Amino acid sequence: MKRGNINFNIIFRVLGSLLFIEAFFLMLALLVSLIYGEDDKIAFLITIGIASSIGLISRLITSNKKKEIGKREGYIIVSFVWVVFSFVGSLPFILSGYIPNLTNAFFETMSGFTTTGSSILNDIEALPHGLLFWRSIIQWMGGMGIIVLSLAILPILGIGGMQLFSAEVPGPVPDKLHPRVTETAKRLWLIYVVFTIAETTLLLFGGMDLFDAVNHSFTTMATGGYSTKQASIAHWDSAYIQYVIILFMFIAGTNFTLAYFGFKLKFKKIIHNEEFRYYLGFILLISIVSAIVLYNTSNLGIEKSFRDSLFQVVSLITTTGYATADYLKWFPFIITILFISMFFGGSAGSTGGGIKFMRIVLLMKNSVAEFKRLIHPHAIIPVRFNHSTVKPQIITNILAFIVLYVSIFVGGTIVMSAIGLDLQSSMGAVITSLGNVGPGLGEQGPAGNFYNVPAIGKWFLSFLMLVGRLELFTVLILFSPSFWKK
Amino acid sequence: MKRGNINFNIIFRVLGSLLFIEAFFLMLALLVSLIYGEDDKIAFLITIGIASSIGLISRLITSNKKKEIGKREGYIIVSFVWVVFSFVGSLPFILSGYIPNLTNAFFETMSGFTTTGSSILNDIEALPHGLLFWRSIIQWMGGMGIIVLSLAILPILGIGGMQLFSAEVPGPVPDKLHPRVTETAKRLWLIYVVFTIAETTLLLFGGMDLFDAVNHSFTTMATGGYSTKQASIAHWDSAYIQYVIILFMFIAGTNFTLAYFGFKLKFKKIIHNEEFRYYLGFILLISIVSAIVLYNTSNLGIEKSFRDSLFQVVSLITTTGYATADYLKWFPFIITILFISMFFGGSAGSTGGGIKFMRIVLLMKNSVAEFKRLIHPHAIIPVRFNHSTVKPQIITNILAFIVLYVSIFVGGTIVMSAIGLDLQSSMGAVITSLGNVGPGLGEQGPAGNFYNVPAIGKWFLSFLMLVGRLELFTVLILFSPSFWKK
Repeated sequence: MKRGNINFNIIFRVLGSLLFIEAFFLMLALLVSLIYGEDDKIAFLITIGIASSIGLISRLITSNKKKEIGKREGYIIVSFVWVVFSFVGSLPFILSGYIPNLTNAFFETMSGFTTTGSSILNDIEALPHGLLFWRSIIQWMGGMGIIVLSLAILPILGIGGMQLFSAEVPGPVPDKLHPRVTETAKRLWLIYVVFTIAETTLLLFGGMDLFDAVNHSFTTMATGGYSTKQASIAHWDSAYIQYVIILFMFIAGTNFTLAYFGFKLKFKKIIHNEEFRYYLGFILLISIVSAIVLYNTSNLGIEKSFRDSLFQVVSLITTTGYATADYLKWFPFIITILFISMFFGGSAGSTGGGIKFMRIVLLMKNSVAEFKRLIHPHAIIPVRFNHSTVKPQIITNILAFIVLYVSIFVGGTIVMSAIGLDLQSSMGAVITSLGNVGPGLGEQGPAGNFYNVPAIGKWFLSFLMLVGRLELFTVLILFSPSFWKK
Repeated sequence: MKRGNINFNIIFRVLGSLLFIEAFFLMLALLVSLIYGEDDKIAFLITIGIASSIGLISRLITSNKKKEIGKREGYIIVSFVWVVFSFVGSLPFILSGYIPNLTNAFFETMSGFTTTGSSILNDIEALPHGLLFWRSIIQWMGGMGIIVLSLAILPILGIGGMQLFSAEVPGPVPDKLHPRVTETAKRLWLIYVVFTIAETTLLLFGGMDLFDAVNHSFTTMATGGYSTKQASIAHWDSAYIQYVIILFMFIAGTNFTLAYFGFKLKFKKIIHNEEFRYYLGFILLISIVSAIVLYNTSNLGIEKSFRDSLFQVVSLITTTGYATADYLKWFPFIITILFISMFFGGSAGSTGGGIKFMRIVLLMKNSVAEFKRLIHPHAIIPVRFNHSTVKPQIITNILAFIVLYVSIFVGGTIVMSAIGLDLQSSMGAVITSLGNVGPGLGEQGPAGNFYNVPAIGKWFLSFLMLVGRLELFTVLILFSPSFWKK
């Protein structure tokens, strides 16, 4: 790799240009605000003005030459676009006065973009429709990825787009739907839009009104978890609605490449995909165990025990974070397995956060292989996945990822308890942020929120959300001194 | 490796012969019992009879031919010797009626041999001196290792001794004090005995009586943590005694090879040892942080805050498990860092349990290297330790170890919470057992004990103690079907 100076010109130019995309989505929220005629429209107008102005200025003061986006520029752009979008995206909350505090507004917005779904709101339903819609739409943008979206709709990223794509969608083993990265991005977004429309339709059938149906489809497909209701999905005491949402959370947690096969009716490819089988099997196993324990330790009926278990398990494993019950009041064993589920995340190539099933499965397979290597020291024992041998470099990279993930979890827990949270709440807050899940443990659990976390803690958790969303390396590499050396 | 049938003849013969060593140590406890003239002497006599009889029978019914101890026989002997010793070692507790229940007696004994130090006793001081001494001596035997002890004093293990040695002392990078394994074992035990005598002498100077001084020296040097007093080391409100014990816990947690250098006055080798520097630095860092927080959140003085912090930190990091305070009542932040310290363990080649500093340091260095590899994909970036390059196989093995360690921690937490413990107590019980530490969290904390854990949980935790003491692979490999295949 040729290493010259970092090209800040292109970084500013791209970051600025991307703000036009945010401005476009802000206009959709403004439209909702105008339809309902509520008091948040001025806030949206001002924010749109600010976003467009920054975008324009960045294009005027930067030069159009030297368009190459290198590896390092890619990491910088991808990390910063999420930060810039979150700052700008927090303005409607601040300017409307509904979340006047910058820390809280930034936390809420970063939590949205990263599809974490942790909230500082004590009364969600007090927000006007425009702001509620904005909360959902930032999750939807973040779900499939801001860069992936930009690649799909903006021609300007054509050169160096692959750098950006792989920095935002690192994944252990990259899947490409098309040799051209812009085509891949378009297909991913198309699948995403189709599913979102499908869910909206099914929710409307179930009697949900259009506004709630659209919002929940946005935040389900993003595995985000923001709801328009304080009681989250428990607000709708309808088995139909809850099963529809379970189904789409499940879909959102699968690799979108598989959905592409599904559209092409290649179902065999889905069924034979190893990650999918582990993902499905694990969800069923955990849900059934949880349902049995819940049924025997509560006064709920069989169907309700099963549905509540399945809902929370799918919600936490896919890192969506909706709730239909305050599961922290369930039998301790269920809390333990749900807590552990928060580490898993969805499949690679899904909108889910967490470690991802593929990494965990490869890790387990490597551990088994390590035992065999101990017994047969001279044999070559490869790790196999989807019927092919996994390269040792990928295993090493996954091991490094997991070690780093656990180290950040441990270090983060230390930081949060230094801020004053107890051990269990600290662990919950850190894993829910790093894994982009949403609810934590204790006061930050499904029945509570993050309002009382000290400001420094909110900034730290926001940082963890970003680190987790971009799968660690993309953000953390910026803290390596050798990254900035010529 | 030639793989025939597993040679069960040699396994039975060796296991039986080793019981004579246990019988010898039982005689020491009997001697103490006779000196104090208490009611536990018959229990020791019967146990000595049983141990010797099994030893004799095993020599009579097995043949003296085919003496070769292969790799697999080595793993089986080492794993089972700890189980057999624990069953036999629990007999004095059962037969004397002081711990009539087999589950409790086995838990107490396995906890002793593995130097965990978790107890089921509600009133330690109710035990007669012989049993108290037996509790300490099983820790002392287990500390340096039953096999290492046997190699040092029994000629019969000469052939295949290396197999046994490396199965009991796996360590990431083996240190040998002498090319012959029996000589290495003798030197290790000599150092161990010298330190034990030194500590006893210093404790006597501090006014501790001979019985307590010997017992505590045994359990300090073993990083075991059994005390003869219900209040553990808090019983002696003497700064001198507590600092002496801190010093020897610290020594017991260092690599014994360094002590060997110390005896040869090669102090530079100690100071330049990287693991030692991290070990010392980490202890100081954590202790000082804890002391500052403790000083500011309690009404203790500066010296007492420092001493209490240093004591618990050294006790938990070296996996000894003594206590001079109920630290679970301290500020939550301290509980978090103490809990995390329980994962560390001492240095490789020490009597401490846990993951070991060398593994953690190499892991961190590899993570840093992984970042550099990401920035410079074509450069070869090795991991260096003690001024030499670490082979990739060692890194892979350590990664597999850590992954397995964390998986067992997670799996164990699930099991314990299925048994009915809450999340925090489950985590505490599992890490304290797996890391051979002693106290857990919650009811199993430093002020409590394991009496109320259900029987199935006690057996499971005993199993984890053994798995942790033999550094995972030696025990777990026996569960691999391919281990038993011809």
